[in-house]
Amino acid sequence: MADPGLSVSTLIQFLDLFGTAAFAATGAFKAVEHKSDIVGIIILATITGVAGGVLRDVIFGRIPPVAIANPFYVIITIGMAVAIFFLYRSFKHYEGLILKFDAVGLGVFTIIGASFAYSVFGMNFLAMAFAGIVTAIGGGILRDVFVNEVPIVFVKELYASASFAGVVVFFGMLAAGVDVNVAAIPCIALVTGLRMFAMKYNWNLPRPRV
Amino acid sequence: MADPGLSVSTLIQFLDLFGTAAFAATGAFKAVEHKSDIVGIIILATITGVAGGVLRDVIFGRIPPVAIANPFYVIITIGMAVAIFFLYRSFKHYEGLILKFDAVGLGVFTIIGASFAYSVFGMNFLAMAFAGIVTAIGGGILRDVFVNEVPIVFVKELYASASFAGVVVFFGMLAAGVDVNVAAIPCIALVTGLRMFAMKYNWNLPRPRV
Amino acid sequence: MADPGLSVSTLIQFLDLFGTAAFAATGAFKAVEHKSDIVGIIILATITGVAGGVLRDVIFGRIPPVAIANPFYVIITIGMAVAIFFLYRSFKHYEGLILKFDAVGLGVFTIIGASFAYSVFGMNFLAMAFAGIVTAIGGGILRDVFVNEVPIVFVKELYASASFAGVVVFFGMLAAGVDVNVAAIPCIALVTGLRMFAMKYNWNLPRPRV
Repeated sequence: MADPGLSVSTLIQFLDLFGTAAFAATGAFKAVEHKSDIVGIIILATITGVAGGVLRDVIFGRIPPVAIANPFYVIITIGMAVAIFFLYRSFKHYEGLILKFDAVGLGVFTIIGASFAYSVFGMNFLAMAFAGIVTAIGGGILRDVFVNEVPIVFVKELYASASFAGVVVFFGMLAAGVDVNVAAIPCIALVTGLRMFAMKYNWNLPRPRV
Repeated sequence: MADPGLSVSTLIQFLDLFGTAAFAATGAFKAVEHKSDIVGIIILATITGVAGGVLRDVIFGRIPPVAIANPFYVIITIGMAVAIFFLYRSFKHYEGLILKFDAVGLGVFTIIGASFAYSVFGMNFLAMAFAGIVTAIGGGILRDVFVNEVPIVFVKELYASASFAGVVVFFGMLAAGVDVNVAAIPCIALVTGLRMFAMKYNWNLPRPRV
Repeated sequence: MADPGLSVSTLIQFLDLFGTAAFAATGAFKAVEHKSDIVGIIILATITGVAGGVLRDVIFGRIPPVAIANPFYVIITIGMAVAIFFLYRSFKHYEGLILKFDAVGLGVFTIIGASFAYSVFGMNFLAMAFAGIVTAIGGGILRDVFVNEVPIVFVKELYASASFAGVVVFFGMLAAGVDVNVAAIPCIALVTGLRMFAMKYNWNLPRPRV
């Protein structure tokens, strides 16, 4: 779930669409696999697609949240849920592709969240990291918790880490005087690329020895 | 958890009381079954009874939430928790009756949530559906997640679906010019009836073939 | 997570620091034990340390929440997470000590939460109890739910109960005319002491016979 915090270019809006749909698809898959009915599938798809952005907006005081003010997001998540309800096998067959879109969502949500905090607080790294990461991982955490799994962000290859890396570079570029709309694109690409490579090559950050 | 978003009639306030108490009872049962102490039982009963409404109010910007501004709700949830602590077997014996009251709660919370969104946004179907369903199912989702179960809404007979059906008919009646207070009663009855029949006859919406 | 709702003395600020660090440490331990990478550890430590306070601020309308406006808290939680990442065995060796600091956190978060509600609503017992308990247990509930465990507050010796007892005495002292800053210290000590004795002697409140 993202929002026009920055004067979003058409490209970012397009990527945002992809991201919301991909997040919703991962939620719909989980719901189907837990034998939800159609309404349960719609709810879990919608939570996965928009909860990160809603959480960010509620914490930072933008009421109503973008995902409620703009019906576009929920229409996408419902559409994706209904499509997967009817065509689960076909969509599941393309799960690899959907996980690539999910990586796009991770990138675009991160940068839209971070740039929203930037528009409110200026150059405050912690606020930007907080907003970027909450936007990017909030929906996925709730999706996993609601089907009784440990959230992917705590156990999988570079996920929140990719999001965090994107915020660091984004902050650095803004600090160096790069325009926010210019900085957004390579940072989205960085997060998305990191996540895709992490999935492909099973990259992990070090874990502590226990 | 509900609130006087519409100029609530005495009847709706009475149903709201039943609903909050019934939701709290389902939370108290879960806590007892997980061997909580009295304070744990009070907390889970209160979360189940009021979290949906608090979540709705936080998302839609009504601060403080009704359930905090008006002590009535929390007094009910605490009272129910204490009663079930002392009289678990007796209450459990009437669990069937309590699930009927829970169905009343589902109906009244749905319509109070939807009419709150209507009072803020006017005829916006998505906002009404969002607010109605969040109010109706938020507490139950948290109850189940907190005792490490997959929420009933994702796995059981018509639950969120009954709530959704109520919003659709409510929206249709308002669109047709029916007064909000007049429309509320039959829509609450619809949700409650659907849920009761679904429990009795084990109705389910279709699930996708996996 | 706490905040200067009362004209906090240096002592309370110091205890608050201890509490946030101790809460963060319990989150970092859980993340390590679930084989999170460094970013997952930081996220779970931060959620555990600040989520209770963020939740309280969002529900009571203080935007942005103290934990975001003041970078100090997140710096502490990140620092603790990084330290535990590198020195897990050493910290784990002192887990008993950290659980004592956690008891300090339980006390100081309870009273800071309750005194925040007091500063907003005056002598409203339910608001004070709500804010105090949410601040004290919110982070721990999310920590446990996110690693798929039933939250400690629903199953363990005096935890939320100790927090609740502190609110009762705090409210009573304010009602008796004691200055809020004077009342805070013994009430923090009460909660902390109750929790420490409960751990040491395995105190439990009665549970219902099922």
